[in-house]
Amino acid sequence: MKTLTKTMKAVAISNYGESGVLKFTEVEKPKPTGREILVKVYATSVNPVDYKIRKGGIQRGVDFPQILGFDVSGVVEEIGHLVTDFKVGDEVFYLPRIIGWQGAYSEYHLAEESIVAKKPSNLSHTEAAAIPLVGCTSWDALIQRAQIKLGETVLIHAGAGGVGSFAIQLAKACGCYVFSTCSSKNLDFVKNLGADRVIDYKKEDFVKIIMNETNNLGVDVVFDTVGSDTLTNSIEAVRPSGRIASIVRVPANLEKAFFKNITIHPVFVQSGRQKLDEICKLIERGQIKPVIDSVIELKDIPKAHEKIENGGVRGKIVVKVA
Amino acid sequence: MKTLTKTMKAVAISNYGESGVLKFTEVEKPKPTGREILVKVYATSVNPVDYKIRKGGIQRGVDFPQILGFDVSGVVEEIGHLVTDFKVGDEVFYLPRIIGWQGAYSEYHLAEESIVAKKPSNLSHTEAAAIPLVGCTSWDALIQRAQIKLGETVLIHAGAGGVGSFAIQLAKACGCYVFSTCSSKNLDFVKNLGADRVIDYKKEDFVKIIMNETNNLGVDVVFDTVGSDTLTNSIEAVRPSGRIASIVRVPANLEKAFFKNITIHPVFVQSGRQKLDEICKLIERGQIKPVIDSVIELKDIPKAHEKIENGGVRGKIVVKVA
Repeated sequence: MKTLTKTMKAVAISNYGESGVLKFTEVEKPKPTGREILVKVYATSVNPVDYKIRKGGIQRGVDFPQILGFDVSGVVEEIGHLVTDFKVGDEVFYLPRIIGWQGAYSEYHLAEESIVAKKPSNLSHTEAAAIPLVGCTSWDALIQRAQIKLGETVLIHAGAGGVGSFAIQLAKACGCYVFSTCSSKNLDFVKNLGADRVIDYKKEDFVKIIMNETNNLGVDVVFDTVGSDTLTNSIEAVRPSGRIASIVRVPANLEKAFFKNITIHPVFVQSGRQKLDEICKLIERGQIKPVIDSVIELKDIPKAHEKIENGGVRGKIVVKVA
Repeated sequence: MKTLTKTMKAVAISNYGESGVLKFTEVEKPKPTGREILVKVYATSVNPVDYKIRKGGIQRGVDFPQILGFDVSGVVEEIGHLVTDFKVGDEVFYLPRIIGWQGAYSEYHLAEESIVAKKPSNLSHTEAAAIPLVGCTSWDALIQRAQIKLGETVLIHAGAGGVGSFAIQLAKACGCYVFSTCSSKNLDFVKNLGADRVIDYKKEDFVKIIMNETNNLGVDVVFDTVGSDTLTNSIEAVRPSGRIASIVRVPANLEKAFFKNITIHPVFVQSGRQKLDEICKLIERGQIKPVIDSVIELKDIPKAHEKIENGGVRGKIVVKVA
């Protein structure tokens, strides 16, 4: 007798291209084995990395039909027989592995228990889904790699974006003085996130402002989420022996970084429970808050991709799934 | 009445070019003021950076006629009125500032006391002059930037060279396991410096050997003194989240470093007393020894430049001045 395979709703791509390649579809519901957990997804989100993969910019580990989406907040639905740290019904949040696994634009998501963490108790699923990717990215860049410290000066580019809005709060929680760039319409918004000095990147020269306001020294650390010219120009705004963490492509010409002994940290975010546990503490103590641009449904994901590509999103676009 | 200006012998360049631009000449003997010290140079040395400046590859702070030479071992001849840490007759060694100052292919050299250190008591001037530039470079790269630790694996390229031969000893003193590349004729030489695994870079593929011998993980740290393809290929031989320190131009394509979260440390060596004091201790305790290829005179400097450019120097070419 044939077993009926259970299915779930998902948004997947079967080729690279514009937002139209994102198709609402039914796929097989995964079954956890070993140390895996199946999570009922209450909320996921849309991040810039999603459209970069969709366009073919990152092709490692992509396996069509590929589901995108790299945030999960949900409830444990089923566990593999070797799982020890979670039980059915636990509320969890995490960053799905970006390479070689399916994403979370779907009703259920499969993950290894080692990357899953308990959800912050003071957040709804919709709020919690705004955290994992931007939180882990900021943690990897600022805490693990650049190792920001009390009293240091940090320049965070694109402070109104998903990563920027988290990174500003994290740097402030560390006791740093934060410069941040954004567009004219977001100046107050970024100031309210905690940035000490907000720079209108279209009207002001961030290098000039920073050199003026740091006794011509430069900041200790730059966190770049923009790349190309922004990153190249940032070298001018970092002090000798400073650090630059970048989550985008590192520029070809590092000659100036060489003479200034600036350390370059190219950051490709890694999934993991430990940093989510640290972030969870900060959220539960009120030191960091989720920043949500809007809440959408699975069917609205193509439009959300376009909105992010066009710029101007404040914080995160969260997808309410259940 | 006219004062007779005192002069000293020196080797200087007045334009960029091949080794013929190095001219034996008489220049004004400097006079120390403030916190400056005038040192009678007993020995200096020839380093690759000398020919790079001579050819116009580094033009920052060059002021013709420019004296090259970035090692000094000598005796304090005269001090500025604010000098507190040295007196006339003290035996000292140091790395002259590379940018904006005169080098040490000369009978006397002027330096700020802050970069001058006491010479190791167990070394002659000829031996001590083999240390500052390669010692400070290795220190900046391995200790300050890459922060090598007990038990780590380190790949040191060009282990028979001036920097390589010091860096191998330093990494071994830290308790690291050292891979090192060199040419066939230097295999035994580099082994004798302390390298655990010597790789003939012309006959063997260092990436393959390292991956084979590190359980396909890669080394924790690469120290590159060669650049271009050697550096690009080194990314393959570093473990995820490893570090690369390079004293040469960083390659354009860091895409692979990005996905592996490899930190890049471009290192332009800085002068300074503190690290020389640390190095001095290690030398006096016998943990590090100078490695001298040959000892020459000021007039032989053009030939030494050619020898270094053609490759095949083992350790340092020291210039005995007095």
